Amino acid sequence: MRSLHGLTVLIAFFLAPFAAAQSQPQLNLMPMPASVQQGAGQLPINASFSVAVSGSHDAALDREVQRFVGQLSRQTGIPFWPKLGAVPTLQIHAARRREAVQRLGEDESYELTVTDSAAKLNAPTPLGILHGLQTFLQLVEITPSGFAAPAVSIKDQPRFPWRGLLIDVSRHFIPLDVLKRNLDGMAAVKMNVMHWHLSDDQGFRVESKVFPKLHGMGSDGMYYTQAEIREFLAYAHDRGIRIIPEFDIPGHSRSWFIGHPDLASGPGPYTLEGGGIDPAMDPTRETTYKFLERFIAEMARLFPDAYFHIGGDEVDGKQWDANPRIQAFIHAHGMKNNQDLQAYFNQRLQKILEKNRKTMVGWDEILHPDLPKTIVVQSWRGQQSLAAAAKQGYSGLLSYGYYLDLMWPAERHYAVDPVAVTVATPTTDAAAATLSPEEKSRILGGESCQWAEWVTPENIDAHIWPRNAVIAERLWSPQEVKDTASMYARMNAVSLDLEFLGLTHRSARMHMLHRMAGNADITALRVLADVVEPVKDYNRWDDSKGPIDFHAPLTHMIDAIYPESEVARNFANLVQAFIQGGAKDVAAEAQIRAALTTWRDNDARLHALLEQSSLLQEDVPLSEDLSALGAAGLQALDALDKSQPAADTWKTQQLARIEAAKKPKAGLLMMVAAPIQQLVEAGAGH
Amino acid sequence: MRSLHGLTVLIAFFLAPFAAAQSQPQLNLMPMPASVQQGAGQLPINASFSVAVSGSHDAALDREVQRFVGQLSRQTGIPFWPKLGAVPTLQIHAARRREAVQRLGEDESYELTVTDSAAKLNAPTPLGILHGLQTFLQLVEITPSGFAAPAVSIKDQPRFPWRGLLIDVSRHFIPLDVLKRNLDGMAAVKMNVMHWHLSDDQGFRVESKVFPKLHGMGSDGMYYTQAEIREFLAYAHDRGIRIIPEFDIPGHSRSWFIGHPDLASGPGPYTLEGGGIDPAMDPTRETTYKFLERFIAEMARLFPDAYFHIGGDEVDGKQWDANPRIQAFIHAHGMKNNQDLQAYFNQRLQKILEKNRKTMVGWDEILHPDLPKTIVVQSWRGQQSLAAAAKQGYSGLLSYGYYLDLMWPAERHYAVDPVAVTVATPTTDAAAATLSPEEKSRILGGESCQWAEWVTPENIDAHIWPRNAVIAERLWSPQEVKDTASMYARMNAVSLDLEFLGLTHRSARMHMLHRMAGNADITALRVLADVVEPVKDYNRWDDSKGPIDFHAPLTHMIDAIYPESEVARNFANLVQAFIQGGAKDVAAEAQIRAALTTWRDNDARLHALLEQSSLLQEDVPLSEDLSALGAAGLQALDALDKSQPAADTWKTQQLARIEAAKKPKAGLLMMVAAPIQQLVEAGAGH
Repeated sequence: MRSLHGLTVLIAFFLAPFAAAQSQPQLNLMPMPASVQQGAGQLPINASFSVAVSGSHDAALDREVQRFVGQLSRQTGIPFWPKLGAVPTLQIHAARRREAVQRLGEDESYELTVTDSAAKLNAPTPLGILHGLQTFLQLVEITPSGFAAPAVSIKDQPRFPWRGLLIDVSRHFIPLDVLKRNLDGMAAVKMNVMHWHLSDDQGFRVESKVFPKLHGMGSDGMYYTQAEIREFLAYAHDRGIRIIPEFDIPGHSRSWFIGHPDLASGPGPYTLEGGGIDPAMDPTRETTYKFLERFIAEMARLFPDAYFHIGGDEVDGKQWDANPRIQAFIHAHGMKNNQDLQAYFNQRLQKILEKNRKTMVGWDEILHPDLPKTIVVQSWRGQQSLAAAAKQGYSGLLSYGYYLDLMWPAERHYAVDPVAVTVATPTTDAAAATLSPEEKSRILGGESCQWAEWVTPENIDAHIWPRNAVIAERLWSPQEVKDTASMYARMNAVSLDLEFLGLTHRSARMHMLHRMAGNADITALRVLADVVEPVKDYNRWDDSKGPIDFHAPLTHMIDAIYPESEVARNFANLVQAFIQGGAKDVAAEAQIRAALTTWRDNDARLHALLEQSSLLQEDVPLSEDLSALGAAGLQALDALDKSQPAADTWKTQQLARIEAAKKPKAGLLMMVAAPIQQLVEAGAGH
Repeated sequence: MRSLHGLTVLIAFFLAPFAAAQSQPQLNLMPMPASVQQGAGQLPINASFSVAVSGSHDAALDREVQRFVGQLSRQTGIPFWPKLGAVPTLQIHAARRREAVQRLGEDESYELTVTDSAAKLNAPTPLGILHGLQTFLQLVEITPSGFAAPAVSIKDQPRFPWRGLLIDVSRHFIPLDVLKRNLDGMAAVKMNVMHWHLSDDQGFRVESKVFPKLHGMGSDGMYYTQAEIREFLAYAHDRGIRIIPEFDIPGHSRSWFIGHPDLASGPGPYTLEGGGIDPAMDPTRETTYKFLERFIAEMARLFPDAYFHIGGDEVDGKQWDANPRIQAFIHAHGMKNNQDLQAYFNQRLQKILEKNRKTMVGWDEILHPDLPKTIVVQSWRGQQSLAAAAKQGYSGLLSYGYYLDLMWPAERHYAVDPVAVTVATPTTDAAAATLSPEEKSRILGGESCQWAEWVTPENIDAHIWPRNAVIAERLWSPQEVKDTASMYARMNAVSLDLEFLGLTHRSARMHMLHRMAGNADITALRVLADVVEPVKDYNRWDDSKGPIDFHAPLTHMIDAIYPESEVARNFANLVQAFIQGGAKDVAAEAQIRAALTTWRDNDARLHALLEQSSLLQEDVPLSEDLSALGAAGLQALDALDKSQPAADTWKTQQLARIEAAKKPKAGLLMMVAAPIQQLVEAGAGH
C-alpha cells in the first residue's frame, strides 16, 4: 500500500476488558489468599512509606525487605528513602527463623492487615513474610488520590506444600539471568519449587568435576559451572524457592554416552544431534552403579534439597531388547520384562540416594511395588495415576494438565486440580474422589512444566507467563477458587506486574515482530498476531517430521505470538453475548463491526510486508483468511441488521471458507474463525 | 465508557512512514559513512555465517568479535555456532594494535566490502574494526530470501575525532548497568567519548579514598566505588569509548562542602537539598589547592584518559562578592573582577593537572588569555564562542545545540554543525565561516548533553535515544549529509536496532503508561501520548517554581512520552502536502479523516480512566483539547469537501479553541494543534 509522502494510516482495533467498567472492585490478587476480608478505606503509598522488621530476622529477610522496597518503587515510580524516626507504614514480624535448607512443608502462612493508617504482616517464619510481601505488592494500585493499598485483612496459607515449575534447559540452554527473572516471577505468585531438568538426550548442563566429559562432551559448550549453580541456589533460597535437580536416567540420557559410551546399553558412537529416545543406561553392569555412586555423591553435595529427581520416564526398551546380555540378565534374575529391569535399576539408585540422604523423585514409570513408600511419583499421565499411587502409599505430584509447552489456554490449566473430583467416564475412574484424607495428604501438589523443544532465552518468558500464575493459584488457593472470568482479569493484572519484575513475556513479542518486519511499521502485523495461536499439544512436533534441529532459529510467527489470544477470547465472548441477546445490542454490534472491518481490510495493508520478509511469507494465507473472515462476518451482521436471513448458498459458501480458515497454517490457528462462524450461522437464521 | 461484558473496542490509528513504500532502497546506516558504493546482489546471513580475524589482534578484539556475533544473533534470531574449517563469511584484518590508553585522534577508519559471497573488513587499528562491525550490523536486513547484507563498498572515517555524550549522574544517580547499555548504544553509532558529569551541587558520585567525606556526605549514598569505576572503564575501552571525568569546580560544588565546608567561599552549613548555585570554592586559600592536589592526583590515577574536565561553568560570584577576604585578595593581586579570580584558580588547577599529565577541559567560562593554548574549551554558548576560541588558538568542543534535556526535535539538533557556515545576523557574526583550515582543525567535535534534572534510570534511555544517534551522525558523517527525511527514516531504523542492544527507550514508555493506568487498557491513553511533547528548553524548570525535589517521582505523562512525536510530525507533513495539493488527494484525506476521527472520539474512551488515576488527572484538559481539535479538523475537511468555505464566525471560534489548545498543560504541548489550524484555515478558504 503506497500513499502520498510514504505515509500510511493504519486502522487497528483492540478488544480488551476495561477494568474501570467493573462495578464491584475486585482485588487483583493471584493466587487468591485463603481468606480475605475487605475493610473500609485505603492506606496511601507515597514517599513517606517505610518498613520496620521485628522479631526473628536475618540477612536473608533484610535482603527480601530491600527487594520488596525496590519492587514497590519500580511499580509506583516512587523512590523511597530511609526515614529517621518514622512510625513504619508496614510493620513486619516473623516469629522464628526459617530452616537453613528449605524443607517441604515448612510453614509458609502469614497474616496481613491493612488499615487506612498502617499495615501489619505477621508470620511464623520468614517464608510467610516472603509471601505476604508479594500479596502487599499486588494490593497496591493507582487511585484518584495516589497509590494505595485497600484496607483488608488476609489470612493465608497454601493448599499444597509443593508448588513447582519445571524448566528444561537441555533442549535449549537457558542462561542463569533468564532463570533468575523466572524465579522472581515464581516468588511473585508464591511458587516454591523450581524443578531443574538438567540433563536429557540433547544436553548435559551441569559441570561435573568428577566426570568432566559429562558436560564437556555432553553439551554444546553451554552448561552451568558449580560456582554459578551455588550462586543460583542462594538466589532461589532467598526467594523461598527449593531447587530440585533432575538427571533423567536410565532413558533420555544420550548426552551422557558421548563421553561415557560404556554406560549405554547399545553400541555407540553417540552424538548430541542423533534423533530418537532409544539410548538407555545399562542397568546390568556394576560399573554403571559405580559411576552413578560417584556422580550422585557429587551432585548430592552440590544441591542441598532433600529431594533428588532421577527422571525415569519413557524408557522404550529397544536397546535392552536388542542386547542379548541384558536379556540374559533379565532371565537370570527372574524378571518378567523391561519394566522389572527398570525397577531393579531404580532400587539400586534409591539405595545410592538414601546413602546420600536424598529422597528419590521420578516420573510415573518409576512406580513399582519393589520401591519403598518414601519415593515421590510425579505424574505426567493424569490424576488417576496419581490417585492410584496415593492409594498404594506413595506421595505424588501432578504435572499432567500443567504442560505449558502444549500451548493450552490458561483456563484449561486452571481447570486441572491435583485432587480432582472427577466424574467417572469409560476411560477414567474418578480415582481421587475415593481417596481417604490420609491418601489425599500424599498428594503434595504439582508442577507446571516448560519443556524446551521450542523455546529460546528470548521467548521462554512468554511461554511460561502469565499462564503459570494460573497454575500457581490452582496449587496455592482453596479448591473452590475457580471462576474463570475472575481468573483472567487477575491474570492480566499480575501479568503487568511481572513485567515490572524484569520478565519479558510481553515485550519479547514486540521485538520479534520488529525482527520479522525489518524497519516497517508493525501495526497491521500486530492485528494478525493478535488473533492467532500456535497449534496445540504435540502438533508442532508432529508437523516437524523428523528430529528437531535444536540449533535452528525460532523466529517465526509461531515463536513470537502469545500462546493464548486475548483478542480472540474477548471477541468470542462478545459475539456469543450478542447472539444470545437476539442481536439487538447496538453498542456490541458497533464493536463487532469495528473489529470485523479492521480484519477485512488488514490484508491490503499487510500483504506487501509479508511478501518482503522470509520470516513472514508463510503467513500470507493466514492474512488472507483473516480478511475473508472479516468480510463474511460483516455480511452476516448486515443480514442480521435487515432481519432478513442470508441465502443458503451464501451460508454454504461462507462455512466452507471458514472451514478452510480453521485449518492450521504455518503452525498457527486462526482463533476468530469459530465466533465468526457463529455470526454467519446467526446471519443465515439458524 | 461501559459496554456489554466489560469489553471495549477502541479504535486506534497509527501514522507511520511505510518503509516498503520507498521506491529507492536506502541503506539504513547511521551515521552515514564517508563513502558508500552500492553493488549488485547481497550476502546471505544464515546459520553458516562465520568470522575470521587475521593481522594484529588481542583479547579486546576477540571480545568485540564475540559481542558482534552475539548482537547479530539477537538481531536475526539465528544462533551461530563455530564452524570448523569453514571459509569465513566475514574476514577481519587489523594492521596494528590500538593504544593501551585510547588517544584522541587515534585512527578510527575502516574499509568494508560486501559481495554476494563474502565480506571483508580492514582497518589500521581495532578501533576501525569496532566501527566497521557496527556498520555491518546495520547493513543486515530481512529480505524475501532471508537475512542479508547488500553488496556494498564502504570507506569510512570520522569527520571529528571527539564525538561525545555527557551524562550527568549528580542530579539523579544513574546505575552502572544503565550507563553500560548507553555505552553500547554509543558504540553502535560510533561515538567515542563519554563525558561523565560526576559531581555537582546535588551529589558527589565517586568514591574518594583520600577524602571519603566527599562521597560519604556529598551523596545520598548512591555513588560508584573505585572498583566499579575501573570495571566500567574497561567496558568502555572495549567499545572504543574514552571516559572523561568531570568534577565541576569552583561552582556547582555544594556537594563537596557538606563534608569539607572549609573549601567554600561562604559560611555553611551546606546540605544536598539546598537550592541555588551560589556556593563556590575559595580560590584564595592555599588549603584549597592542597586539597585539590591530593584529590586530583587520586582521580588522575583512577581515570587513565589524557583529558580531565574541571567544569568551570556558571560561577555566579555571589559568595566571592560577599567575602571581604576574597575581595581583598582580588585587589591585592591586581585582578579586575571575579572572572580574573576564576582564571587565577584555573591557572593553579591547570598546573596541578599538568603535573598529573592531564589536559584540562572546561566550559566556555574557563577561556581566558592567561591560560595556555593546550586547554580545551567546551562551548554551551554557541558556535561563535567556539570559533572565537579557535581563532585565539584554543581547541574546542561544541555542546550548544546538543542539549538533549531541552526536548528539541531531532532535526533541530541535526541542523547544528560544530563548524557552522552561518549567515551573519545582528546577534551572530558567522565566525566559523571565517576560520582558517588550521583554526578549523582546532574544533575537535562535540558532545551531546544529558543533564539529569528530569530523568531517572527508567526514562533516561528515552531522553537520549534515538535523538543522540542524529548528533552522532552530525559528528561523524561528512558535513553535506543533512537530508532531514533520510535522517528520520534512518533514525527510526537505528532506534529499533538499539532496543535489541538492551536499551529501553521504547519499552519504558509502555511500562510507565501501564503504571499510570493501573490495570486498564492503555490504547486510548497511547493515542493521547502519541500526539503530545514535553515543553521545550527550560520551561519545565521555570514551571517548577523553586528548587527541584530530586527525590520526587518522575512518573507523569511528561516523564513517559517521547521528546518528539512521530505521529504529529507525520500528520503535519500529510496535512501540508494535502493542502498544497489543493485538497484533492482522496487517499490522503481518508488518512487525515481517520486520524481526526480517532482523536475526536478519544476523550470519550479515555476520560474515566484519566479521572481514576492521580497521575493522569492533570491530563484531562489535554484529552478534551484533542477531541475538540479532532472535531474542528473534521468540520474543516467537510467544508473542503463541499468546496464551500466555512463561515468566518466558525473560523474565529475554531482558531480561538486551537489557540487555547496550544497552551501548554501539565508540561505538555499538543503537537497536532498547528496542522489542524492549517486545515481550519484552508476550510475557511484562506
